[in-house]
Amino acid sequence: MFIGAQVSLYPMTSDFVDVVKSGLTALTPYTDDLRIETDDMSTLMVGAPEPLLDAIRDLFAEAARRPEHVTMHVTLSRGCPGEPDDPSCHCEALVRAQDLLLEDRKALASEAVAAAPDLGVGIDVQFSLYVLGQDHHMDEIYGCIDFLKASGTFLKSKNFCTRLRGDAGAVFETLRQAFLRFGPAEGHVTIDLTASANSPSLR
Amino acid sequence: MFIGAQVSLYPMTSDFVDVVKSGLTALTPYTDDLRIETDDMSTLMVGAPEPLLDAIRDLFAEAARRPEHVTMHVTLSRGCPGEPDDPSCHCEALVRAQDLLLEDRKALASEAVAAAPDLGVGIDVQFSLYVLGQDHHMDEIYGCIDFLKASGTFLKSKNFCTRLRGDAGAVFETLRQAFLRFGPAEGHVTIDLTASANSPSLR
Repeated sequence: MFIGAQVSLYPMTSDFVDVVKSGLTALTPYTDDLRIETDDMSTLMVGAPEPLLDAIRDLFAEAARRPEHVTMHVTLSRGCPGEPDDPSCHCEALVRAQDLLLEDRKALASEAVAAAPDLGVGIDVQFSLYVLGQDHHMDEIYGCIDFLKASGTFLKSKNFCTRLRGDAGAVFETLRQAFLRFGPAEGHVTIDLTASANSPSLR
Repeated sequence: MFIGAQVSLYPMTSDFVDVVKSGLTALTPYTDDLRIETDDMSTLMVGAPEPLLDAIRDLFAEAARRPEHVTMHVTLSRGCPGEPDDPSCHCEALVRAQDLLLEDRKALASEAVAAAPDLGVGIDVQFSLYVLGQDHHMDEIYGCIDFLKASGTFLKSKNFCTRLRGDAGAVFETLRQAFLRFGPAEGHVTIDLTASANSPSLR
């Protein structure tokens, strides 16, 4: 299994270079567990979902603690058939999910969100979950939507995506659970995600 | 068939509100052909791929003509089983593609890119194409990658996505063709796309 993300931070300020650089320092605790490579468009992070989503969450929370409007785009992927197997991406939750029914996976996902830490940073997210390479992909999507609606972070459905709102801790746990618990454990699943904080549209 | 996009423009300047507002004026020629609705996170555009990709292209090109670094995120979707049929999304190219072999679709896609207008705006793009709800989705992905590599806008492959570079006219035509010509004509296909212009990382 190969798991990772392409992550881009977009601070809406003329000081965006400083905000991006200081945001990237939030990744320091994760450099042992993740492969991290930055180019001119995004930062690649490869590793298991536990450190991966924690790192993405902390990167965005660090930038969102500043007063400026900031957004982030993330392309998350697991199990892409075109990527090589990588032992650093091993995820016990995925292995154990192999034989679980959709209802059980929804319950585990809800428990994880309830146990998420409170980071004291309110954020907005919209995202799309894609389950690839199987005929009944919409069953898994609808199961995931059930989980989302009961998660405490659900804001509304939009065309092509779902809106979440809440503390960064609960919101990113919701995203990790959506990514891990829906779609086949060994299958190809991706998420297209944008996060936003301090938007003047909400003032 | 329901076709559309969620589009967000991110100008990396403290004047971002002005840049977004002036960028949105580029959509005026398309208001007859597209349903356009803006909220605090993105602008929904619904309609056929011809005006849809032209509008997204012109929005980004308008913002990229300014000196500031600007990026855009787009979630494109066609044929989502959860969305209602919409006659305004009717696309003759999709209907005709129904019976075409992968090789023929690659050739038509290349012809379209060669005929794209030159907008005089250089941009970078990275994107992922997702073909949902069928077992052999990677065949279509690999066919699309063949087309991309010969398109003249291909820069490189990255984990989870493909980088394009070139004039906004050719790059957005490449994206439209990837969106239209690969994956079943009546199937569920999405693109997760980020565009960038005037990045200081490239100076």
